Amino acid sequence: METLSENRCFDGVQGVYRHASGSCGCDMTFGLFLPEEAGDGPVPLLWYLSGLTCTHENAMTKAGAQQWAAEQGIALVFPDTSPRGDNVADDPEYDLGQGAGFYVNATQAPWAPHFRMWDYVAEDLPALLAENFAIDPDRQAITGHSMGGHGALTLAMGLPGRFRSVSAFAPISNPAGSDWGRKQLAAYLGDDETAWARHDASLVMRERGFDGPVLIDTGSADQFIDLLRPEALADAVATRRQPATLRLQNGYDHSYFFVSSFIEDHVAFHAEALWA
Amino acid sequence: METLSENRCFDGVQGVYRHASGSCGCDMTFGLFLPEEAGDGPVPLLWYLSGLTCTHENAMTKAGAQQWAAEQGIALVFPDTSPRGDNVADDPEYDLGQGAGFYVNATQAPWAPHFRMWDYVAEDLPALLAENFAIDPDRQAITGHSMGGHGALTLAMGLPGRFRSVSAFAPISNPAGSDWGRKQLAAYLGDDETAWARHDASLVMRERGFDGPVLIDTGSADQFIDLLRPEALADAVATRRQPATLRLQNGYDHSYFFVSSFIEDHVAFHAEALWA
Repeated sequence: METLSENRCFDGVQGVYRHASGSCGCDMTFGLFLPEEAGDGPVPLLWYLSGLTCTHENAMTKAGAQQWAAEQGIALVFPDTSPRGDNVADDPEYDLGQGAGFYVNATQAPWAPHFRMWDYVAEDLPALLAENFAIDPDRQAITGHSMGGHGALTLAMGLPGRFRSVSAFAPISNPAGSDWGRKQLAAYLGDDETAWARHDASLVMRERGFDGPVLIDTGSADQFIDLLRPEALADAVATRRQPATLRLQNGYDHSYFFVSSFIEDHVAFHAEALWA
Repeated sequence: METLSENRCFDGVQGVYRHASGSCGCDMTFGLFLPEEAGDGPVPLLWYLSGLTCTHENAMTKAGAQQWAAEQGIALVFPDTSPRGDNVADDPEYDLGQGAGFYVNATQAPWAPHFRMWDYVAEDLPALLAENFAIDPDRQAITGHSMGGHGALTLAMGLPGRFRSVSAFAPISNPAGSDWGRKQLAAYLGDDETAWARHDASLVMRERGFDGPVLIDTGSADQFIDLLRPEALADAVATRRQPATLRLQNGYDHSYFFVSSFIEDHVAFHAEALWA
């Protein structure tokens, strides 16, 4: 593992690191914020999964999460959103290929060899963090924005016991229920829809749910809301009787101005579960 | 004036606007955050001047100032750092030309026709804001980072009565005292050093000072600290007996991780003066 940068931030350290990922078969870069308390021993960890077109950097510089993580004594990890590199397949559109991993293990050409972001977030990166940093693996939580909200919800429900709490900002909530989402799922996972089910937060919510608190914020003026389909997730939550808080925030859109406006709430929400 | 974007943010609106600047002879873009209270009438205004290579966007997306401005009911304006455009002179280096206006009115070719950032910040943009937004011109304060800290200090001292308080993050404090700073001043203002004096914060502090509170933060691990020369400003403040708080923040560098770590302090500092 290579250190690309370390900057002091709210009495902690915001680092950026690069490592070889076995799952993705390429080098991967991630951001990690460690609060001052990590100097005294392992601290809880909140995962932040980013959305389409983002790298590890967007949330790290724009979401404003470090202040609240520092206040709560919690670490933050910001993974990249896909494998990267000249040898990695790509697509000219923003919603497929590099920057658009969708947190799945692709089974279809040309994506299959590298696009294994589920395994990267579920296995590679946790192992690397446990080995190199003062992180308590028994105290993890997960959040994300847009495509990253989809990843946070599907990983939290798909790995029972791993995360104590899950939240999301404007998550892609029901990709199997829109033409746009069906295009991505088919490209990465093929035409057999049974392989899609575990990557559709509304379907997994209906089948399995989450054993812990759930918080979802979406802007009422989100310009992508028809693609996100928050109504499908709301229906699944209600049908399952899943304890959850779903909020439509008046006038907010899909931008980081929305995320930063509510990140304090989300970090406090996770801190309550992580320190319980 | 043209609206480029408006995003809801902490119950207010973060807008980006473009207008024709008479001083700069080109179109200029700026960011403006208006808190919710601006819907009921004019609110105080805090100027944030950015550093080398920045546009209006960097601080607007990375400094995290909006949360505290919203809490205090204060507007924030984020001007660009130079004139822009194909017809505007430029230089291949990062520290001269576009993105490097240094908040002076250039008198030397090829900069003279467009590089009038002093007048832009002192005259053009205030007039535009007063005409188009719910801003109280009697309640203004100013801050900035690096080259923008230099601009904040020289404008605050150079326009007595305009700003109630001034602060800066890692300001370029004594350009006339370093080879690096002398290069920029000579390029824009010529070889006659008498024209430089009003653009050197340490010299203006020594001659004139500021009639109001002053707050300066610099990181002890700032990688550019030898160019910033905080010791010259500290000496001038002490010699003048200027009421001021000068802080060296342990381990922080020159990045926005430093700015965001202390922006809450700075906004609260200005709010106290603006609401007095």
